[in-house]
Amino acid sequence: MNQPIAPSSIPSARGPVEHDIRDQIIAAASEHFSQYGYAKTTVSDLAKQIGFSKAYIYKFFDSKQAIGEAICSRCLAEIVAAVEQAINQENLLPTERFRRLVNTVIATGVNLFFNDRKLYDIAAFSASENWPSAQAYDVQIKGFVLHIVQQGRELGEFERKTPLDETVTAIHLALRPFVNPLLLQYNLDFVEQAPTLTSNLILRSLMP
Amino acid sequence: MNQPIAPSSIPSARGPVEHDIRDQIIAAASEHFSQYGYAKTTVSDLAKQIGFSKAYIYKFFDSKQAIGEAICSRCLAEIVAAVEQAINQENLLPTERFRRLVNTVIATGVNLFFNDRKLYDIAAFSASENWPSAQAYDVQIKGFVLHIVQQGRELGEFERKTPLDETVTAIHLALRPFVNPLLLQYNLDFVEQAPTLTSNLILRSLMP
Repeated sequence: MNQPIAPSSIPSARGPVEHDIRDQIIAAASEHFSQYGYAKTTVSDLAKQIGFSKAYIYKFFDSKQAIGEAICSRCLAEIVAAVEQAINQENLLPTERFRRLVNTVIATGVNLFFNDRKLYDIAAFSASENWPSAQAYDVQIKGFVLHIVQQGRELGEFERKTPLDETVTAIHLALRPFVNPLLLQYNLDFVEQAPTLTSNLILRSLMP
Repeated sequence: MNQPIAPSSIPSARGPVEHDIRDQIIAAASEHFSQYGYAKTTVSDLAKQIGFSKAYIYKFFDSKQAIGEAICSRCLAEIVAAVEQAINQENLLPTERFRRLVNTVIATGVNLFFNDRKLYDIAAFSASENWPSAQAYDVQIKGFVLHIVQQGRELGEFERKTPLDETVTAIHLALRPFVNPLLLQYNLDFVEQAPTLTSNLILRSLMP
């Protein structure tokens, strides 16, 4: 358990120390949520666990959900960063970029599920409650799909008859079982074959 | 609560009466499971509830799961029957049959979810535990997909380059969020737009 930090020791300007304290709260909360569950944990429980006062925690986070959101955002940002790295390499054609998008979303999600279960569970909870962090993640993934489809249409690799919005929404929906952390845990039996089968099916649907 | 039936009153041959008693056990069990949950209910609880002895229930069902399976089979059989009725009409082309398959699976599942929640929950449990009833249902739905794809290929409506098995498995996987009762409950926000978008995407992937 960490030593309590007296409120007087907080610097008045937002600076590295404040950042460290936020990190410390997030780390302790992740730990506590994973042990007792997000729903059953109160801010008082967290305060006791960390050794801070409840009022002190409220200086950094407006609510328990704000702490959960911070945890969840980090977790989903990891997936987004992995996807960005995989698809934003030079000279990749849209077909290959799409395959990498699907493979990376699934692989990163599965990795998180098996190796960082506590973060994963909060992400799944966030998805089930449709928190802003989960919504933002969804928008980002859909943005990647849009960008790839647009590029594919411009290069003549993909068909252009279907309205762009319909194509993108349908693909995003088809990827949902693997993009959404809440659903991914029910699809773990399929993560071996799904990336290839699903990518192939979607890419066939995009053929001119 | 029903009156206990003395074992001596059971006809020795399997007949309509025996059938009625099975039905009675299934009905009482559905009720009990829905109130207390499948996992928490024991055969002893059911026996007390119905007013039968535990041994008497075991004359009709080998285990609690056998009762759950019977409930679940009926529930999933309803979906299969609705699909069969929708797609096995004369002179339907494969494209239209496929659309009907998707629409009917989703509509029947959603209807069950909202109007017969206790049956739905057992079906979802069955899917999560991969019971034989859930497996059989999956095989039946996949069989419908196979049949429609084969017919579409024969009539030249669908492409034939992709191995048949890959096409059918990929479509079945794409339909899983709506076919699988466990997943459907997390996709209720999408059941308005999903049938058309998903069918359109899959049908585009099938174009020659």
